[in-house]
Amino acid sequence: MDYKEFFSADTGSFMRSPVREIFRKVDLSQIYSFAGGYPSAETFPLETIERLSSEVLRKYGAKALQYGATQGVPELREAISKRYGVPVENIQITTSSQQGIDVCTRVLVDPGDVVLTTNPTYLGALQSFKSYRADVVGVELDKLEEALPAGKKVKFFYAIPDFQNPSGQTMTLQQREKLVDLARKYDFLIVEDSPYRELRYEGQPVPTIYSLAPERTLHLGSFSKIMAPGFRLGWIIGAPELLDQIYVCKQALDLCPPIMDQYMAAEFMAGGELDKNLAHTIELYRDKRDYLLSLLEKYMPAGVSWTHPEGGLFLFVTLPEDIDTVALYDRALAAGVAYVAGSFFYVDGSHKNTMRLNFSFLDKERMEPGIKLLSSLL
Amino acid sequence: MDYKEFFSADTGSFMRSPVREIFRKVDLSQIYSFAGGYPSAETFPLETIERLSSEVLRKYGAKALQYGATQGVPELREAISKRYGVPVENIQITTSSQQGIDVCTRVLVDPGDVVLTTNPTYLGALQSFKSYRADVVGVELDKLEEALPAGKKVKFFYAIPDFQNPSGQTMTLQQREKLVDLARKYDFLIVEDSPYRELRYEGQPVPTIYSLAPERTLHLGSFSKIMAPGFRLGWIIGAPELLDQIYVCKQALDLCPPIMDQYMAAEFMAGGELDKNLAHTIELYRDKRDYLLSLLEKYMPAGVSWTHPEGGLFLFVTLPEDIDTVALYDRALAAGVAYVAGSFFYVDGSHKNTMRLNFSFLDKERMEPGIKLLSSLL
Repeated sequence: MDYKEFFSADTGSFMRSPVREIFRKVDLSQIYSFAGGYPSAETFPLETIERLSSEVLRKYGAKALQYGATQGVPELREAISKRYGVPVENIQITTSSQQGIDVCTRVLVDPGDVVLTTNPTYLGALQSFKSYRADVVGVELDKLEEALPAGKKVKFFYAIPDFQNPSGQTMTLQQREKLVDLARKYDFLIVEDSPYRELRYEGQPVPTIYSLAPERTLHLGSFSKIMAPGFRLGWIIGAPELLDQIYVCKQALDLCPPIMDQYMAAEFMAGGELDKNLAHTIELYRDKRDYLLSLLEKYMPAGVSWTHPEGGLFLFVTLPEDIDTVALYDRALAAGVAYVAGSFFYVDGSHKNTMRLNFSFLDKERMEPGIKLLSSLL
Repeated sequence: MDYKEFFSADTGSFMRSPVREIFRKVDLSQIYSFAGGYPSAETFPLETIERLSSEVLRKYGAKALQYGATQGVPELREAISKRYGVPVENIQITTSSQQGIDVCTRVLVDPGDVVLTTNPTYLGALQSFKSYRADVVGVELDKLEEALPAGKKVKFFYAIPDFQNPSGQTMTLQQREKLVDLARKYDFLIVEDSPYRELRYEGQPVPTIYSLAPERTLHLGSFSKIMAPGFRLGWIIGAPELLDQIYVCKQALDLCPPIMDQYMAAEFMAGGELDKNLAHTIELYRDKRDYLLSLLEKYMPAGVSWTHPEGGLFLFVTLPEDIDTVALYDRALAAGVAYVAGSFFYVDGSHKNTMRLNFSFLDKERMEPGIKLLSSLL
């Protein structure tokens, strides 16, 4: 039978993630993959998690397996409150920080509403914005005021200020302050997506946008890169009036986040294991970043440039204008190397001569043959 | 600052769950609670879960903590496929069956579209339908054809055919066949919500609606009542063309369901633990249902009637016309007994003289003083 007549108007704007489509087609372990945003399996605290599973089940008993509060279990909200110095009532636990993006969009955006974002931007955020038929406008940060669409309500600006996905770039304090000034002047909110903030390999932390404008920022955190992504846990920090709508929405979305996982995350954070694991992760990723940068230096042909990220999981490569990384992609995959075409991250699909490279996932000893192979294709 | 101008039109139709609001106000363990739909903690396989946590981490290693497929891990889809005799490609894992309801609505419903439901119906489904501004029409099953709104597209009929929440009633085979006939005649889909199906305490199973009309039914399953609700895991069985839109939507919702939890559920189901635990759960709940029925018989004043559920977690009480259970509610809570007012489950808020009683959560020895107290208030 024909189902087309049944689908909602939103489905017409659904975007398939090209990254997830790649993963359906190939076994990542069989190729040199600089695609994806997967953390390294070496950073997963397997033994600690095994110990915490038992501890949590013994400590909390049936509570760890029962339904729980929609806002998240108190222990996890308290651990986040303590770590980041934010009141518990300003914290909502989410079932992944992707859900954080989605629920913020759901609560704020009607079809046609303007959502501003840096360009390029995170693909999963684009998917979410477009799925609600937002008018997504990609802007250059330093030309933001000129780019504001005249006569249209801007609901929020979406930013990943630290070690951005995909560019690897970090917003300066001046850029953050300017953004906040404009948000106040033109009355829009800011969604600050912050999954990589604690993965800094050099330089000094820059204040969060939330700390500069707590009244109009929704700050999204994630356990995916500081504990493990399999738990699908994140959080939103924001004004209680905004969180209240998100709370009611989340009742209908999934009632509450997974309970045992939340207790494990709470113990992991409050008990000091997170900091221990983070120190090890930072050391590992700094080394991998440095190594990838040295390989690019060594193997990339003239006319190729790339960003130097101070943290996070990604760097962004710009190739000569005549190279189309989307067109090149199937050949690269067949040869055994994967990246994500940079144009997927641009709101308008432009910048065909760019690509995102991830340095967290691939084992260090597989990076050199991978980059050699990639360079030979360019 | 005033956030009202930022909220989407959908938020105007968000409903707060009165059940969840009760839980914010009172400590359930301190009162006689017949409210909520909480399974008994006695049915939670704590030791098995502790063992499975270790086994899964040892068997799957880092895979148990990494990102995974949006459709769910293959092992869990295969376990469900085998148990229910449905091809793997017809199965999507969801992060709770509440998410199943939500994502089906998201993919199928535009504001103003008609969603039909039995009346009364599950509150969480009402919340989801209304949050997308559906035109929710509550109908009596046996007067469905007459109740179909003329000239308006009906997207789907929502049913909980087995041991319905809140009524405790089960659709007969004839009613299911009639529903399917009408769905074919008037071209609408059916969302079959089936969280209680395996909790049958007497009588013979009736074929699922999905088995009668697989091409136009989305069947929702849940681990909440057969394993533990804290895992937030469910599944959707349906035509691959429908699941494909749900899959793309779910990428933007939360990327994938929790991974370690999925592996635990897969081992729990495939390894025979589920059947063992289910046998114990059925025995416990049958006894509690029988006991609650006997207490109602013993203590309820004349003019009060109730349903006799063949399974599930709930029965539904009808009081004399002049008793308003919403008005009575605060007094009952203050006295130390909780129920859910039946009118919350009616699309139009009618039937003020009804209440839902849950018999799974409260310990058996606390049921008698609870029902005595409740009866004294009527």
